Amino acid sequence: MREVAVVGVGMTPFGEIWEKSLRDLFVEAALAAIDNAKVDHLDYMTVGCMSSGLFVGQEHLGSVMADYLGQKNLPAARVESACASGGLAFRQAFVEVASGMSDIVLAGGVEKMTDISGDGATYALATAADQEYEVFHGATFPGLYALMAVAHMHKFGTTRDMLASVAVKNHHNGSMNPFAQYPFKVTLDQVKSSVLVADPLRILDCSPITDGAAAVILTTVEIAKKLGRPYIKVLGTGHATDTIALHSRADLAYLKATEIAGQKALKMAGKSLKDINFAEVHDCFTIAEIVVTESLGIFERGKGGEAALKGETGLEGKFPINPSGGLKSKGHPVGATGIAQIVEVYKQLTGQAENGRQLKNKPKTAMAQNMGGSGGSTLVHILEVA
Amino acid sequence: MREVAVVGVGMTPFGEIWEKSLRDLFVEAALAAIDNAKVDHLDYMTVGCMSSGLFVGQEHLGSVMADYLGQKNLPAARVESACASGGLAFRQAFVEVASGMSDIVLAGGVEKMTDISGDGATYALATAADQEYEVFHGATFPGLYALMAVAHMHKFGTTRDMLASVAVKNHHNGSMNPFAQYPFKVTLDQVKSSVLVADPLRILDCSPITDGAAAVILTTVEIAKKLGRPYIKVLGTGHATDTIALHSRADLAYLKATEIAGQKALKMAGKSLKDINFAEVHDCFTIAEIVVTESLGIFERGKGGEAALKGETGLEGKFPINPSGGLKSKGHPVGATGIAQIVEVYKQLTGQAENGRQLKNKPKTAMAQNMGGSGGSTLVHILEVA
Repeated sequence: MREVAVVGVGMTPFGEIWEKSLRDLFVEAALAAIDNAKVDHLDYMTVGCMSSGLFVGQEHLGSVMADYLGQKNLPAARVESACASGGLAFRQAFVEVASGMSDIVLAGGVEKMTDISGDGATYALATAADQEYEVFHGATFPGLYALMAVAHMHKFGTTRDMLASVAVKNHHNGSMNPFAQYPFKVTLDQVKSSVLVADPLRILDCSPITDGAAAVILTTVEIAKKLGRPYIKVLGTGHATDTIALHSRADLAYLKATEIAGQKALKMAGKSLKDINFAEVHDCFTIAEIVVTESLGIFERGKGGEAALKGETGLEGKFPINPSGGLKSKGHPVGATGIAQIVEVYKQLTGQAENGRQLKNKPKTAMAQNMGGSGGSTLVHILEVA
Repeated sequence: MREVAVVGVGMTPFGEIWEKSLRDLFVEAALAAIDNAKVDHLDYMTVGCMSSGLFVGQEHLGSVMADYLGQKNLPAARVESACASGGLAFRQAFVEVASGMSDIVLAGGVEKMTDISGDGATYALATAADQEYEVFHGATFPGLYALMAVAHMHKFGTTRDMLASVAVKNHHNGSMNPFAQYPFKVTLDQVKSSVLVADPLRILDCSPITDGAAAVILTTVEIAKKLGRPYIKVLGTGHATDTIALHSRADLAYLKATEIAGQKALKMAGKSLKDINFAEVHDCFTIAEIVVTESLGIFERGKGGEAALKGETGLEGKFPINPSGGLKSKGHPVGATGIAQIVEVYKQLTGQAENGRQLKNKPKTAMAQNMGGSGGSTLVHILEVA
């Protein structure tokens, strides 16, 4: 297989973007990435999107997006893995380049979540859970992650303050991200006194409903060198699934697919965790970031909450997590999230992170972890600056 | 890239299958393919499905299907390209094996279309068209293909009898397919006097609403040889898109994405059309088969209808089209169709087609063409018996 590089990135601001449609958002991010990479054509495109059928009544996004991007007849594939659709789009683009099938590939992600009326977004998001055994009986995602939080608190003594500290840290980082939906800081007390959604999770433990898109350009390292732009290498990819229903798992306080995908990605990269300088991870809820950091092996089991509270995951901590602000502050347009993580990794590794959130000591190697549903699917990628 | 083979196939009967769910259908087809190939494990899985979110409220099919297939933690990717989702699942599985990422990959397709109430299926299918410029204004798929039919009749003098002859031929073939939804023969007069749907298309010009699933196992030619089972080689894959909206095309009576995908696949295979012994093509409406055979170059432009009427596309004709019965008679569970085409190609090339529809003279090389929407995306594959 050929060595693969990311050679340019782009994204829209994340938020409630009433004046732009699903296709407008995708095209804006894609054009930004193309411009950033200075490529003169595309050979293939992957589009990560979770549920445009339910959100805006539009499937067939390969055709729609190639058409509106002005790339007539471009082969383009829409992929879906719930909230990990972006990570999957990145993996499929990686394989497309590595295999030799295509030289220059755009991997994009998009979701337009605010056009749906009433409780439609909650229904659409619930299609990432088990329709027959969870959703039909009333489960929603805040409810499922609340079960994980209760299990983690019961098993390890994880506290309300530990959960809140994840939100405080991510909003701190996100306050320096010009693309973030909620670029403001919050305090522990604000998180702990915000409105209850699903006990113990409060509104400030939850990532928001978001419109947005992100895109990156992948090519061979050989072509990346010729383009003369900053590039990073994709060293490893890991992909795994788990039971769709939370109740089928042996342990509610752990994410097996994240463990497996992380280990696969590290093995393929020939790296271990001590080589990784920071990570973007899937903090759809505060408890998710804690369980993910433990399942990846960054912290011991049961110690992720304590590490967050102590500041070990902050920008100056020993293992920075979500310098972008994460899903919590940056926003979570579900199909775009996995690609937006790669955008942040690219910026950090090439020294381009805005407004003071650039990590010190020149990070060299990073990890991006993106998951679907309650962890039913996970994609992990290892990236390194050239 | 490595040489890739299809080493086993399976499918459910197609039809209105009230007693089986989306996941039941997929698992039934997948287990049949695994059993047929006699593989002892899977390394990866792709799941083609157009709109399970709208049809049954379930996305995240990689996780659902790996879980219910008993393949816990298997990496699995759902892909979508409207009615070409199955063809896309096959292509992604091909690249996965060819690249060296995975050795044994299941490519499956599924759709459960009859559980949705009222005119829900028409709405769900319309998400393959342009939501903003076609669907919002009332266009449905029979309406869009009727426009193509009128354009073709106007331009080339294609007749009502020519359209009907496609249905007669496909129902004749499908009457010998034990998996077909409508395994009965129809006459020219029956087609021409069936109820009008969208002038000039009548109900017997249209493929049905169908539940069903299909699956195939891809591996390297090297592994296929060791398995000792009949196998066919995947020689070429072609993928292209076109404008999502029909009204944006220069010519309504032609399918540019089909032309491009066909030529790419042939080029990659090192073949020309005269090497191809038969084809499975996307006859979602009778007019579609005529336009597809012309766009692929099998017949001259404007001559596809005449060729069908003269019997040139029949089982004993000079270029058999849709020996399986096609979407028209076999049924069209949209996400499964592209894989079901590969199932038929495998059976024909390995001499296993049932009930007298086996082509004479030992076909060696075949083509499968699967398209989404009104031709907004197309996948073409070239396959050859070893």
